[in-house]
Amino acid sequence: MTASNPKPREKASKSPLDRLQSLLSDDMASVNAMIMARMESGVPMIPQLAGYLIAAGGKRIRPLMTLAATALYGGDMVRAHRLAAAVEFIHTATLLHDDVVDDSDERRGQKSANAVFGNEASVLVGDFLFSRAFQLMVEDGNLAVLKTLSDASAIIAEGEVLQLSLQGNIIMTLDNYLEVIKGKTAALFAAACEVGPLISSDAPNAAKIMCEYGMNLGIAFQIADDVLDYNADRAKLGKAVGDDFREGKLTAPVIMALSAANDEERTFWIRTMEQKEQMESDLVRAQAILTRHGALNKGLELARSYAQKAREALAEAPDSIFRATLDDLALYAVDRDH
Amino acid sequence: MTASNPKPREKASKSPLDRLQSLLSDDMASVNAMIMARMESGVPMIPQLAGYLIAAGGKRIRPLMTLAATALYGGDMVRAHRLAAAVEFIHTATLLHDDVVDDSDERRGQKSANAVFGNEASVLVGDFLFSRAFQLMVEDGNLAVLKTLSDASAIIAEGEVLQLSLQGNIIMTLDNYLEVIKGKTAALFAAACEVGPLISSDAPNAAKIMCEYGMNLGIAFQIADDVLDYNADRAKLGKAVGDDFREGKLTAPVIMALSAANDEERTFWIRTMEQKEQMESDLVRAQAILTRHGALNKGLELARSYAQKAREALAEAPDSIFRATLDDLALYAVDRDH
Repeated sequence: MTASNPKPREKASKSPLDRLQSLLSDDMASVNAMIMARMESGVPMIPQLAGYLIAAGGKRIRPLMTLAATALYGGDMVRAHRLAAAVEFIHTATLLHDDVVDDSDERRGQKSANAVFGNEASVLVGDFLFSRAFQLMVEDGNLAVLKTLSDASAIIAEGEVLQLSLQGNIIMTLDNYLEVIKGKTAALFAAACEVGPLISSDAPNAAKIMCEYGMNLGIAFQIADDVLDYNADRAKLGKAVGDDFREGKLTAPVIMALSAANDEERTFWIRTMEQKEQMESDLVRAQAILTRHGALNKGLELARSYAQKAREALAEAPDSIFRATLDDLALYAVDRDH
Repeated sequence: MTASNPKPREKASKSPLDRLQSLLSDDMASVNAMIMARMESGVPMIPQLAGYLIAAGGKRIRPLMTLAATALYGGDMVRAHRLAAAVEFIHTATLLHDDVVDDSDERRGQKSANAVFGNEASVLVGDFLFSRAFQLMVEDGNLAVLKTLSDASAIIAEGEVLQLSLQGNIIMTLDNYLEVIKGKTAALFAAACEVGPLISSDAPNAAKIMCEYGMNLGIAFQIADDVLDYNADRAKLGKAVGDDFREGKLTAPVIMALSAANDEERTFWIRTMEQKEQMESDLVRAQAILTRHGALNKGLELARSYAQKAREALAEAPDSIFRATLDDLALYAVDRDH
């Protein structure tokens, strides 16, 4: 590649997520139109609240996965639009309920929906969006899709309850943690990917390939996210860090640092995470302990191992620009700065 | 009927609800077993919390409707067990979320689940049960059933949000009120009844008949419930009254009394319901105002008109012991004391 060939170079500088967005921009526009149309209701508070969160953006990565997986298997993109909207509605419903559960004030760089509209409305509008998701799936009428997404919804809820029951308990193991993130994040990534071949391919292995890709991608993504939450460089960019620390959520880096902690460090984690007695300087101290144990790098290594599993699963899928970009996305899930 | 024929006389003294329970006792036992089996999860907090609410009882009227409607149309009762459990899970999920929204301390004569396990857990376990309901429907595999119950779920959520947006606003009309109760109560009654013919009958009108029966029965039931909440005789029996009043929920009796209120009464309703400034003696005063306007009787009259619509719809269904008992149930929905 030379300077006289600027186009691929420009392309290469875009993230795989941006490249997928470009490849599927018309389809994503249809998905967004479907989302806007189907969050309508005769009860004005519903589109107001849902629209508030949805308009705030987010990367729409899950519906994008459904579109990419459908395109990869040469499926009907019109069907994929509806199902991608269903996937995003399930995700939005879980965000609304998560923010109530975590008592969050912020989401996507603005006040959270529950902070503006109240917890009550967030719970109920979440229920509405969840129901809407199932209505969209029923309209499509594929029972395998309905099974995949209702199974995923149950696993998401289980992951969230497990996280709640383990919150602020420093005996949480890495296995517990992986179970939590499989539920709360990876299950919907897996289902979003699996929907593509389910509506596109008779190949017996296709759904399994994309489910494994999505599951491992989701795990990699979430571990990397949890590492980034302690990344001091990110704070310099004005991005939020330390949310998990403040909420007493044990994630991969802390669990790894705990396994090698001395008495003083152990006392520190018990005070800050279990008893949630935190001082201004504690986040910096937590970051220093994590660095001392190489816990952030160990976390990224773990994330990379799942990204690698995702790529291995994907290698069985048909060769195409979509496969290549999804392959890049697995690497990018770990080595990104936001 | 003479004293020498005591059995029918004894039967007649049982409520239609008890008679349906007796007619379908083996099936209800299967439904209860299905409910217990399917609220299991590897995450212990889920069966603990769900079991706490489910063990507290409740009349299981909605799953009973599904069983009765299936039996009425000669359908497969084994399929009905699974779908009746799905209906009860949807109902339980809405109760868990309702209690969070209303910040309730009591449900079914004991501390509410959110008071014991926290709002966070109630939100998430509600989501789990809702997902479980859809998994059960997917296992059955009937798309018409999935459509009916996902539509009902969306309407329930809309009804709840509408109620929340109108709460404590004395301009609420009787039409607003009917819209709210169609959503929050009648839609699930209608869907629970409709499921029966959907899995049992090819008759084009059967689903419509049972949907209309269930919808009107649900409206009658809820209006009667809202009247009972102001019934002073019920308080003498040790039953809770005045919940709606304390929560500032405008229901049929108050809306009817408001339409004929003098200035002093209007000021009273604004203070107690809109501004929620209530004194110890205000419930008794509210009851006196309602009695003065005959609002409780007017409420029951309205409920009776819906019960009559339910009976008219049901008259088109096949003649059987189930039709006769469901017909009695419509009358009983209004003229009961609990």
